[in-house]
Amino acid sequence: MPMRIVGLRHTDESVLVGILTDDGLGVCVLAPLEEFWAEPRRWLAGKPATEQVVATLPLDDVEFVPPVLPGAKVICIGLNYLKHVAEGSYASEGVPHHPTLFARWPSSLTVGGMGIPVPPDEDGVDWEGEVVAWVGATLVDATPEEALAAVVGYSTFNDVTSRRAQKLTSQWTLGKNGDRSGVLGPLVPAAEVGDLRDGLKVETRVNGTVVQQGSTDEMVYTVGDTLSLISRTLTLRPGDLLATGTPSGVGYSRTPPWLLRPGDEVEVEVERLGVLRNPVVANQERHEVLGSGASA
Amino acid sequence: MPMRIVGLRHTDESVLVGILTDDGLGVCVLAPLEEFWAEPRRWLAGKPATEQVVATLPLDDVEFVPPVLPGAKVICIGLNYLKHVAEGSYASEGVPHHPTLFARWPSSLTVGGMGIPVPPDEDGVDWEGEVVAWVGATLVDATPEEALAAVVGYSTFNDVTSRRAQKLTSQWTLGKNGDRSGVLGPLVPAAEVGDLRDGLKVETRVNGTVVQQGSTDEMVYTVGDTLSLISRTLTLRPGDLLATGTPSGVGYSRTPPWLLRPGDEVEVEVERLGVLRNPVVANQERHEVLGSGASA
Repeated sequence: MPMRIVGLRHTDESVLVGILTDDGLGVCVLAPLEEFWAEPRRWLAGKPATEQVVATLPLDDVEFVPPVLPGAKVICIGLNYLKHVAEGSYASEGVPHHPTLFARWPSSLTVGGMGIPVPPDEDGVDWEGEVVAWVGATLVDATPEEALAAVVGYSTFNDVTSRRAQKLTSQWTLGKNGDRSGVLGPLVPAAEVGDLRDGLKVETRVNGTVVQQGSTDEMVYTVGDTLSLISRTLTLRPGDLLATGTPSGVGYSRTPPWLLRPGDEVEVEVERLGVLRNPVVANQERHEVLGSGASA
Repeated sequence: MPMRIVGLRHTDESVLVGILTDDGLGVCVLAPLEEFWAEPRRWLAGKPATEQVVATLPLDDVEFVPPVLPGAKVICIGLNYLKHVAEGSYASEGVPHHPTLFARWPSSLTVGGMGIPVPPDEDGVDWEGEVVAWVGATLVDATPEEALAAVVGYSTFNDVTSRRAQKLTSQWTLGKNGDRSGVLGPLVPAAEVGDLRDGLKVETRVNGTVVQQGSTDEMVYTVGDTLSLISRTLTLRPGDLLATGTPSGVGYSRTPPWLLRPGDEVEVEVERLGVLRNPVVANQERHEVLGSGASA
């Protein structure tokens, strides 16, 4: 069982980082979020020593949240699998010559199990199963080799998209930042994952039906090359994330289109990284979440 | 003299919010950043009572930073002045039917006076003088009237752009998030600014030469309409920002193109909101800022 790093909300609303126990029944609390990202390699070096574990909590006592710094950059590649380029709105333009990068704010992120709302003007939301890479060092004008060496872990990710909002204008930002639309799994240390170029299977299922099947060796732009490119404009920091793009099989480009509606269940499974399973819920949940004062 | 709200770095690296004194020689410290944005209207209601002022510091002892929550969303309108649409790459497509929205991460923000670096693959960086609106309440599926009523202040903004990176692919994200590329002035309370539709003059100068002159009454999409639209996909929170777009006169579309290079000085002045003045510096500064461990 690989090490699985998770975030949990502390009683004072701050976020702690912990490790899921191998039996899946508890969480060993390691450190506050800021301390974890100040020295990620220290915490990811191996199973924690007894004295590093603050407490072990049963799952029922834990509210999971993404272990993401509020000021982290969530950088996403839009078109990185040839068959996904071919199925989408940009097919006539061919494979772009550079990775197509768009932004998520961390406030759009959530974890497995949480309900994903369908915004009021959408017929539904679309799935995009993929892999996220976590940056563990500061990178300024880094080479691809330096950038890849700075990756400290990977996670399963579901880049759930409001297609109508995404395609209102030339820029995808709005449709990529719906409430609770970016579902992030536990971080698995890079040393336990190996090289994405060796091919990790990515599979998305809707109500149990397989809708996406791909392998990370199909990616056009590698993690190292993409982070290197980014670092030549903006400085990457520990805790920043790169979502590496989705394989073919998304819903909007099907005939007829197939979108997720309230009552559906969507799962993304990535080899070695684990499964994310989320129900899709009505827009009303956006009002109720707000009413409770919760941030996610 | 309107009330001018600023951010300053505390000795423990946290951020405090304060008010510039009318003589411009000091800052009255009000509250930690999180406390300010928990109740912005309380702090913006008027000149603070004596017991609300924690300390008054001379300017020499202060390091200014944007009073922006690390988890805030900086949402920017790309094409909002007719003459700017007509001068740019999207001219043949006409005015978009909806506001074109793109994202900045707060880590790209800085304040007046700081050096703006030119990334290594750019011939220079481009200016975009504009106005930012600050959201002061939570907004879910808000009407335009509710959204406008939630705006608690405005600031001068320079949306400095790495044009090459912006135009590498269909998505502008990379070129809009260069280190220290979003220059943000003090927040002026909405009550002291009035209605942007009445027309605030926006002027950008490079080495003293006027390069942009516009008025906020030329905007196609209003602040209220745009925030309302956004809130129907994602929840807006106190401390989020909306950059309202730039008038015509940017550098890249000129013949020949005119970009900012190290040694240049760029100024943006907005009526009632004040002036931002920044030197442009070499890429080396990105390495030196990093070396010092500073985050901006």
